[in-house]
Amino acid sequence: MSVIQSVHATIRGLRDQVAALHAELPRNALVVWTAGNVSARVPGADLLVIKPSGISYDDIRPENMVITDLDANLVDGDLSPSSDTSAHAYVYKHMPHVGGVVHTHSTYATAWAARGEPIPCVLTMIADEFGGEIPVGPFALIGDDSIGRGIVATLRTHRSPAVLMRNHGVFTIGSNARAAVKAAVMCEDVARTVHIARQLGAPLPMRQSDIDALYDRYQNVYGQA
Amino acid sequence: MSVIQSVHATIRGLRDQVAALHAELPRNALVVWTAGNVSARVPGADLLVIKPSGISYDDIRPENMVITDLDANLVDGDLSPSSDTSAHAYVYKHMPHVGGVVHTHSTYATAWAARGEPIPCVLTMIADEFGGEIPVGPFALIGDDSIGRGIVATLRTHRSPAVLMRNHGVFTIGSNARAAVKAAVMCEDVARTVHIARQLGAPLPMRQSDIDALYDRYQNVYGQA
Amino acid sequence: MSVIQSVHATIRGLRDQVAALHAELPRNALVVWTAGNVSARVPGADLLVIKPSGISYDDIRPENMVITDLDANLVDGDLSPSSDTSAHAYVYKHMPHVGGVVHTHSTYATAWAARGEPIPCVLTMIADEFGGEIPVGPFALIGDDSIGRGIVATLRTHRSPAVLMRNHGVFTIGSNARAAVKAAVMCEDVARTVHIARQLGAPLPMRQSDIDALYDRYQNVYGQA
Amino acid sequence: MSVIQSVHATIRGLRDQVAALHAELPRNALVVWTAGNVSARVPGADLLVIKPSGISYDDIRPENMVITDLDANLVDGDLSPSSDTSAHAYVYKHMPHVGGVVHTHSTYATAWAARGEPIPCVLTMIADEFGGEIPVGPFALIGDDSIGRGIVATLRTHRSPAVLMRNHGVFTIGSNARAAVKAAVMCEDVARTVHIARQLGAPLPMRQSDIDALYDRYQNVYGQA
Repeated sequence: MSVIQSVHATIRGLRDQVAALHAELPRNALVVWTAGNVSARVPGADLLVIKPSGISYDDIRPENMVITDLDANLVDGDLSPSSDTSAHAYVYKHMPHVGGVVHTHSTYATAWAARGEPIPCVLTMIADEFGGEIPVGPFALIGDDSIGRGIVATLRTHRSPAVLMRNHGVFTIGSNARAAVKAAVMCEDVARTVHIARQLGAPLPMRQSDIDALYDRYQNVYGQA
Repeated sequence: MSVIQSVHATIRGLRDQVAALHAELPRNALVVWTAGNVSARVPGADLLVIKPSGISYDDIRPENMVITDLDANLVDGDLSPSSDTSAHAYVYKHMPHVGGVVHTHSTYATAWAARGEPIPCVLTMIADEFGGEIPVGPFALIGDDSIGRGIVATLRTHRSPAVLMRNHGVFTIGSNARAAVKAAVMCEDVARTVHIARQLGAPLPMRQSDIDALYDRYQNVYGQA
Repeated sequence: MSVIQSVHATIRGLRDQVAALHAELPRNALVVWTAGNVSARVPGADLLVIKPSGISYDDIRPENMVITDLDANLVDGDLSPSSDTSAHAYVYKHMPHVGGVVHTHSTYATAWAARGEPIPCVLTMIADEFGGEIPVGPFALIGDDSIGRGIVATLRTHRSPAVLMRNHGVFTIGSNARAAVKAAVMCEDVARTVHIARQLGAPLPMRQSDIDALYDRYQNVYGQA
Repeated sequence: MSVIQSVHATIRGLRDQVAALHAELPRNALVVWTAGNVSARVPGADLLVIKPSGISYDDIRPENMVITDLDANLVDGDLSPSSDTSAHAYVYKHMPHVGGVVHTHSTYATAWAARGEPIPCVLTMIADEFGGEIPVGPFALIGDDSIGRGIVATLRTHRSPAVLMRNHGVFTIGSNARAAVKAAVMCEDVARTVHIARQLGAPLPMRQSDIDALYDRYQNVYGQA
């Protein structure tokens, strides 16, 4: 199989994966209507696979996913790419270890983002997945690479695969698209739990050494080998 | 095809659309029991298609949707029209660009309405869809055109397609019924997110120029051409 | 058909109805696990149809509904009746116009009940269905007619078909079992909306004359003739 | 049938039960993604049946449940056991009457755990199922028997089948796995209701004698004989 045939086969597989992973967003109540999107990097090519702009979750199919380059130019597909494609593309261009990106306006995480307040690491589940607080990124307008730059600048200085973009919503990253979706699901879950804890008082702090131990273990021992 | 045949064909299509769009209300948790309703204007005729009064969402079918004129008089259908028909009719009569109207008592939006407090524009999603705050309309009793007048007077002075009627619930408008349903879904979503943000402090304000830029882009660039 | 045959036919129909209506409780998120119950009076006989004690909502069938007399003694059925049967029976015995009773521990309504605080009439939907505040009944232990007496004493002095039993949960009544289920669904919906409104300030009051007008219209005009 | 054949048959039945009971966790919104687990003791053997580590709820089947001894060593199964297996095993080893254990990070219960605050007994439903407050256990790191010791030490001094582990989540026990799942469902339900009650004021206290009477009755009279 030639290199080109191999990339084509990879893209076919990623269309299936990305389309299927979009179903996790409404299923986990992270999005309403057409908001939110999932993308995957095409390994071995400067390309990504993403949802088209403004289409219903009911209508998502592998064949209507669109392919763009890492400057967000349409390469393959009949529909316009998500209006968040520039942000996804910027992340892939500047964070080579990232294989998947997710964007949502999930309720509780976005509420923290509206106040510009990071989610403190006060649960073992936050230590496990995020390795510390979930940080806040800057306010940035859509339309150029401002959002992408804000995401990358924030995530580079944190263990967290999630960033709360001020007055906007959440972006998460992962080694693949499934891992980024997992981070989006867990981000909303802990955003909700810590919010609810805070409503009636102050959550108890955790020691940094405990956070480090939990993060190390979860990243290296949890799941199947 | 005569004008009359054409109107009949249009009404058949709108019965299907309006019946199908009603399913989005419980699906998006905007209504309980028989509350809430969706209508569509019949283009080229002073008519509207709406849900009958007090019927279960399980029982909604194209054939039991009812047709009224723009004074809310029954024109076609075996059942009494929604008790909110006068409000819908008043909107169509006085806002010629409106093709769809939705009414709900969705929880968070109605909570803002109970306090008579507009939802401030502190999220990019609010700027996108509503172009500024979501305003409050007056308290009005059902039974004459008071509710319709309150809706129209409030929406005429705002970009927002949604109005929070005091101590009552939400009315949304759109160029068609689907757009009005979208506005109802997004209104509840942002009502919830801003409520939750406010519970633990003050959301950060957004600049008017940023709100304007986001609104302009979303209305003109988002989605498929 | 003899009187006895007629009662048997009525009971068969009510077994179907009561079993089917139980599905509305989890569907509307009013109950968890085996909590909650619906009953119907058997017209023309001092009997009621109710759910057995402690059975899963997945296992509810017309044939395992149980029949008791109005002292809660088992008359027909293989299973023990709901442990709340005495309360239902007391209501039927002392409120002849009641044809259906529902009991839940639905979250928001029970939260008001835990504080012993009535839900104020600050929404048109509360005026429509409840005609005023939703009142609080006394604390009462299960095991004799204390709960039933508390329900009846409270509902006799209010328009509301729902009562919040202190530190316990909700009982609703209706002219039939479906109407009682509707009251339970709407009680939780307005309990939630008013709770959320109150979290960020005081809901605006409504005038008594407006409440009276809304109640009168909803009871007499809403729905199909 | 030999003793060994009998244990094999028991394990087959428990694989079915434990796999099926896992479906109750997402159904009751107690877990997200792969979090949470249910186990059952194998009667007549120092063994337990539990979910593998990090697998999706969609992929849970009787045949991929794993069997470990009461030191959490894998005895049968192709996958690594849940990373919480040590905690489950410790409970079975030190509480011989326990036949099932459940672990979740359910939102409201975990919020109380984040503050290290027990859930007070202010609802008849809490008296029924938990016999008093739902207590808080110590903070403990995963990886040795610290969590198990914290659970056992806390539950031994309370009637409650649920313990809120500080900054972590919930563990529940029961005479079998189904009873432990029921306790997990009810724990989250009352954690939510009392949280919501507390948001707008203080729940009314209940008398100890009433709590005792309710607990006694529910444990001995409720349900089918």
